[in-house]
Amino acid sequence: MAATSSEGEGKPIRCKAAVARRPGESLVIEEIMVAPPMPREVRIRIICSSICHIDLTFSDMQDPPGFFPRILGHEAIGVVESVGKNVTEVTKGDVVIPIFLPDCGECIDCKSTKSNLCTNFPFKVSPWMPRHENTRFTDLNGEIIHHFMYVSSFSEYTVVTFANVTKIDPEIPPNGACLLSCGIGAGVGAAWRTAGVEPGSTVAIFGLGSIGLAVAEGARLCGATKIIGVDVNPEKFEVGKKFGLTDFVHAGECGSKPVSQVITEMTDGGADYCFECVGMASLVQDAYASCRKGWGKTIVLGLDKPGSRISLSCSEVLHGGKTIQGNLFGGLKPKSHVSILLKRYMDKELQLDEFVTHEVSFKDINKAFDLLRNGQCLRCMIWMDN
Amino acid sequence: MAATSSEGEGKPIRCKAAVARRPGESLVIEEIMVAPPMPREVRIRIICSSICHIDLTFSDMQDPPGFFPRILGHEAIGVVESVGKNVTEVTKGDVVIPIFLPDCGECIDCKSTKSNLCTNFPFKVSPWMPRHENTRFTDLNGEIIHHFMYVSSFSEYTVVTFANVTKIDPEIPPNGACLLSCGIGAGVGAAWRTAGVEPGSTVAIFGLGSIGLAVAEGARLCGATKIIGVDVNPEKFEVGKKFGLTDFVHAGECGSKPVSQVITEMTDGGADYCFECVGMASLVQDAYASCRKGWGKTIVLGLDKPGSRISLSCSEVLHGGKTIQGNLFGGLKPKSHVSILLKRYMDKELQLDEFVTHEVSFKDINKAFDLLRNGQCLRCMIWMDN
Ligand SMILES: [Zn+2]
Ligand SMILES: [Zn+2]
Ligand SMILES: [Zn+2]
Ligand SMILES: [Zn+2]
Repeated sequence: MAATSSEGEGKPIRCKAAVARRPGESLVIEEIMVAPPMPREVRIRIICSSICHIDLTFSDMQDPPGFFPRILGHEAIGVVESVGKNVTEVTKGDVVIPIFLPDCGECIDCKSTKSNLCTNFPFKVSPWMPRHENTRFTDLNGEIIHHFMYVSSFSEYTVVTFANVTKIDPEIPPNGACLLSCGIGAGVGAAWRTAGVEPGSTVAIFGLGSIGLAVAEGARLCGATKIIGVDVNPEKFEVGKKFGLTDFVHAGECGSKPVSQVITEMTDGGADYCFECVGMASLVQDAYASCRKGWGKTIVLGLDKPGSRISLSCSEVLHGGKTIQGNLFGGLKPKSHVSILLKRYMDKELQLDEFVTHEVSFKDINKAFDLLRNGQCLRCMIWMDN
Repeated sequence: MAATSSEGEGKPIRCKAAVARRPGESLVIEEIMVAPPMPREVRIRIICSSICHIDLTFSDMQDPPGFFPRILGHEAIGVVESVGKNVTEVTKGDVVIPIFLPDCGECIDCKSTKSNLCTNFPFKVSPWMPRHENTRFTDLNGEIIHHFMYVSSFSEYTVVTFANVTKIDPEIPPNGACLLSCGIGAGVGAAWRTAGVEPGSTVAIFGLGSIGLAVAEGARLCGATKIIGVDVNPEKFEVGKKFGLTDFVHAGECGSKPVSQVITEMTDGGADYCFECVGMASLVQDAYASCRKGWGKTIVLGLDKPGSRISLSCSEVLHGGKTIQGNLFGGLKPKSHVSILLKRYMDKELQLDEFVTHEVSFKDINKAFDLLRNGQCLRCMIWMDN
């Protein structure tokens, strides 16, 4: 409990953080100072974090939006240590999940059932806090350390705005709650909210990484009866069966048939819902071609390289009656929808623990990076020592 | 009533038709033979037709899907002259509108509320009848004359399948009913069915031809409060006000601002619904950029040249939460939805007569082509002499 000894409302906290000092290098665990929360901000003691490919990408990224030194980490659960002025949503001691996508609850988008893109706190991958464009982290030399995705959870303490915390029931196991804060939540949300998968429907998922598997789990939860995974690695099918996958298409091994034709045949006309989870523009086109004429919906979850574009035939768009949609965080509203999913997790309807394949303690955080880099884990939980 | 003298169930009818003999030439009014309807087909005496750009395009089209000789025309109203075997939907004397898009009422799509693309009779621009790939028209030398869009209404009599006729109340004025059978129906339908425009919403329409104006009328009917027209011709705004247009953007005259930025400013963030009604892939991209982050929907109504493609930024798709959708006939189900719109027309809620700017008799059909070619009409009604 070394870190908590320096807790104190309104005062800076000295604690440990894993700092990305230079692109492509291991994180350095060092002592830093975490400033007290400003008005409408919350300081959180992190319980555990998980890690996803976005952390990996930004730990390697030389140029903006890559910044150094920086505290990465954006999938987490924690306890409110103190709150700044005018915070009514949470109070000291509350268990919360920090979520990168803001939900202020006050703007037209947050009040709408149709949007999850807060206009008061528009999301971007910034090196700063929202609104203030400054930082709450400094190293022991007084140099600033940059934020990441408004969360920066690879630290014993972090500061986020009220719009970036969702209060949860303290009885909820940290594993499950933490996972819903980013990729796994996005996958489940894409099936549930963006697509609106219905009982009896057919689903095709392009790419069976954690997000693709989370889409499968979401589709299973919504009652889809045929859930087809598409991947270049057939081992993913075995893993995917746990999350509801019923069928597998081995991409690259379909002979002369395009994947879209294989899926069209398997589904008697095309899947009701197709999900692109890799981040490859050409796969979006395959997904679009694989979804059913008349009502098929393609959901874009992956992000390709900057500047890449999706190309669709005008004629196919006009004649197919199909829809294509992208959504951050799978269309989930960070406060209302995450709570609903957590209830279903507690009711044992939604499987989340199965995504946790590895656990390490904070001092071994670089092992978590290695596991992810080598494709050896779905989610690796990083537990704080405090 | 010359033509009716040769009516006779089960026998060929000799009557007048306007035949497209050669690409780019005027139609030739000549006598032809119309075979009796085969099982599940209906022979119709045409009351009037209107003409749209598709007729024009195919009258000029040298190579397939252009075919000659052919009877064009696909927006019409008529009376059932006789029915083939196993037709239960309509009977002799019923007033009907033939609709190019089949609705068999029996297949999974026709039974679904989500699709309007019949799988038993898949639509394509074929020179034949559906299913049989043959023709019911011959000239007096016994040579076949091709069909067009399963309707071929530029003839005193035509034959269509049961799936291509919608029975309507005989009290409905022919003008209005005829118009709903293609472009005007598609425009109204795109606002009502595909977009689902809600009261108070904002709409931007790219291209103020008849279809764009029909979208405006549909949006007005659905209660949109801001309906922005975008066109290179500012005169269209005056016309469009009749159909609910509230604002106008003069494309090409916005200075250095892209149209999407102008619309974004006018709507405080982007239009809820954007419609591309020209058939230009780049305009689809402008429409997509003009619709609101978080929930904006872009509907594709126009068809660009074969092979043209819509290009969307991956990042914009993923981060915008926007939807893009195309739909034939504006997503209208030809039987159920057209009847609902006709009721609203009869109740004076939906304006249709205002689209009829010109009327000619059948013998002057080439004048109708000239009017359309020169952009002088919205819809020109062509009345049969019988
Ligand atoms: Zn908000
Ligand atoms: Zn993540
Ligand atoms: Zn059908
Ligand atoms: Zn038409």
